[in-house]
Amino acid sequence: MKEDVRLARIALHWLIEPGNEAVHRMVNANGPVRALERLVEGDVPDEQLRGAAAARMVAGDPRKVAEAALDRAERLGARIVIPEDDEWPQPVRDLTRLLGRPAKDRIDRDVAPPLCLWVRGVPRLDEALTRSVAVVGARASTHYGEHVATTLAFELAEREWTVVSGGAHGIDAAAHRGALNAGGLTVAVLACGVDKPYPSGNTGLFDRIADGGLLISEWPPGTVPVRHRFLIRNRVIAAATRGTVVVEASARSGASQTLRRAIALDRRPMVVPGPVTSAMSVGCHGLIRDYPEVRLVAGVDHVLEEVGRIGELAPRPRGPERPHDGLDIESAMVLESVPRRGSAGPDELAAKAGLDIRTAMRKLTLLESMGFVARRAGGYTLAPKPARARAGSGAEPAPAAVGGTRSGPPMDHEAGAAP
Amino acid sequence: MKEDVRLARIALHWLIEPGNEAVHRMVNANGPVRALERLVEGDVPDEQLRGAAAARMVAGDPRKVAEAALDRAERLGARIVIPEDDEWPQPVRDLTRLLGRPAKDRIDRDVAPPLCLWVRGVPRLDEALTRSVAVVGARASTHYGEHVATTLAFELAEREWTVVSGGAHGIDAAAHRGALNAGGLTVAVLACGVDKPYPSGNTGLFDRIADGGLLISEWPPGTVPVRHRFLIRNRVIAAATRGTVVVEASARSGASQTLRRAIALDRRPMVVPGPVTSAMSVGCHGLIRDYPEVRLVAGVDHVLEEVGRIGELAPRPRGPERPHDGLDIESAMVLESVPRRGSAGPDELAAKAGLDIRTAMRKLTLLESMGFVARRAGGYTLAPKPARARAGSGAEPAPAAVGGTRSGPPMDHEAGAAP
Repeated sequence: MKEDVRLARIALHWLIEPGNEAVHRMVNANGPVRALERLVEGDVPDEQLRGAAAARMVAGDPRKVAEAALDRAERLGARIVIPEDDEWPQPVRDLTRLLGRPAKDRIDRDVAPPLCLWVRGVPRLDEALTRSVAVVGARASTHYGEHVATTLAFELAEREWTVVSGGAHGIDAAAHRGALNAGGLTVAVLACGVDKPYPSGNTGLFDRIADGGLLISEWPPGTVPVRHRFLIRNRVIAAATRGTVVVEASARSGASQTLRRAIALDRRPMVVPGPVTSAMSVGCHGLIRDYPEVRLVAGVDHVLEEVGRIGELAPRPRGPERPHDGLDIESAMVLESVPRRGSAGPDELAAKAGLDIRTAMRKLTLLESMGFVARRAGGYTLAPKPARARAGSGAEPAPAAVGGTRSGPPMDHEAGAAP
Repeated sequence: MKEDVRLARIALHWLIEPGNEAVHRMVNANGPVRALERLVEGDVPDEQLRGAAAARMVAGDPRKVAEAALDRAERLGARIVIPEDDEWPQPVRDLTRLLGRPAKDRIDRDVAPPLCLWVRGVPRLDEALTRSVAVVGARASTHYGEHVATTLAFELAEREWTVVSGGAHGIDAAAHRGALNAGGLTVAVLACGVDKPYPSGNTGLFDRIADGGLLISEWPPGTVPVRHRFLIRNRVIAAATRGTVVVEASARSGASQTLRRAIALDRRPMVVPGPVTSAMSVGCHGLIRDYPEVRLVAGVDHVLEEVGRIGELAPRPRGPERPHDGLDIESAMVLESVPRRGSAGPDELAAKAGLDIRTAMRKLTLLESMGFVARRAGGYTLAPKPARARAGSGAEPAPAAVGGTRSGPPMDHEAGAAP
């Protein structure tokens, strides 16, 4: 019985390209077996659907094709997974949310959940995808993009996140490699048969993925990739993961479509920025500008803030702490009034700093206790070198730097005093 | 009479550091002349304010210091501009919006509008700032940041926008240079006297700016820059311009403070992203992540979208148009079903494309009229090379590329058919 269902689901994906909404409704209403029968018998109201099935059946009987596909898959160690199986990834069911939305072309109509998935690799599909993030991007990537994708995937894998991508050249391949280099789990969602992953140039990579991770596809073994299948495939990458990170994307790019799917599915949409001088970042910056939901992410910590649990939240980035930064502004004003050579009395220092004498005195006591200044001959001097060095401020010119502009007469040192 | 007011305003900025809220209220209530008298006489409720004035007066009589400053300015060809003058830049009045806000330290309290501005250069201050954008950023900038700042400033100046910055090393200097190279107007807002602009390393640049543009400062000639003055100064850069663009900023940076002031003043806050691998972009990415008002800008067109008028709005960036992109998905599916060698009949093509025969026929007629396919021997073949090349798609593998993976027997070409 369940094997009839399995066979019917396989046949349906061959008879009508995956994602078809009408087929999805028929399967929901009649079950896969009856839905297949109706399509084979031409008992379908939708004329185009009926015609498409009829045209495809010229090439063979759907059930026989399905059986042959199963045999072939078995020979190459692949398996078929259907919603009735325990290892079916439940999140892809969310794709039903995309049905019935205004669609400008066929790609936006063919968004129904897959009826079955071909799988090559050992791990359980559902478990592999539980803690997963998609890292996708341009095929014509730059060294920068590949470096970022590899590093991000490596660090995600180190934290036991599965890295999902499309197996393409460029960013996709870099993401898969990064996860593999960390000894982590990675999943390639293909738009062709798992027996002959595209592109053939990545064959070595696909073998490494199949060793420890998974190659998956909605299309039976032997299927060749054609353009629209990559776009249909993208909805599965978006739905199966908790969030999608786009690393590099040109102005028109499949990665952008995957991110829009993630937004529509309430997954976390993330984009890595890049140099504005790079054509490969134009699409990324456009996504950040156009979609308020999109989060700019600059590293694994930012990604974990989006997809991780509280425990995994990352600290905010901060610049290096400097002793000087600890000072309140008025103390800094007093410190910067102390002459570089010799000493000055509290009154003079208060005048230079533009503070009242009481405040100036309080701050001088503080600065002395912190080792910035020393009392000498009824006045105050800057503390000896070591402490002085610590007093430098990178954010704005340090006293020494300011001093560098002091070439005029002494009076020049005083705020606003004219000779 | 007006000259008394001018002198009083100059004296007030020397007696109490610019931006002081209490002084601002006194000037509003009593006028500059009376406000100065009261401070000199110590007739001030605020004890700290009274003390600060008293301490500063140890260095001299405010009115005499003001007169000396005026003489000195005249000698070096600088002038003083006050709100009572026609060329006063009205937008700085908006700084009153920042008064009375919760302030964590003195820098956030000293946000009152300047009482006067020292100016070196020929153009009228108000006119120079009417169409102006601030371009600010890190002093420890990278080649990337300097390249972006110079280019952006150049293109803004070409479109007759004034580029305002702080005259510092790095991004500020690059922005001023870019505007100068375009023969445009640029304004440096200094935290020291206009007679001796800081840093001295930029002296040549400051002279070029003073030739055609403007050097301005709230502090009288002879004033040396100290840390807090840069932060006080930043409010003027934010208030005097229509928007602020941060090009590079480390995690703690004065440029970020200028941008926050711009946000508080309802000016347009803009940030240029950079490589996530660069420490000089950490602050930029943090601002984009932390402030929803901030717009990511990748070039002059994006900046004009924010500060320009409708006429100046820029077109959205698009990838290159390709003949293939013009095709609807179903036409593309048919085109990609046509064998690379030989011909195939409509039935076979419909089967491969997964379309009903009628749709397939319609699309074949379209493809023939567009020169993608040719009719031959009762079937269809791909059009000769030239047209074939035009049919390639960069976004996803073109038919030729897909063909590259076809190494199996003919049956493999058909979607899902198993041998």
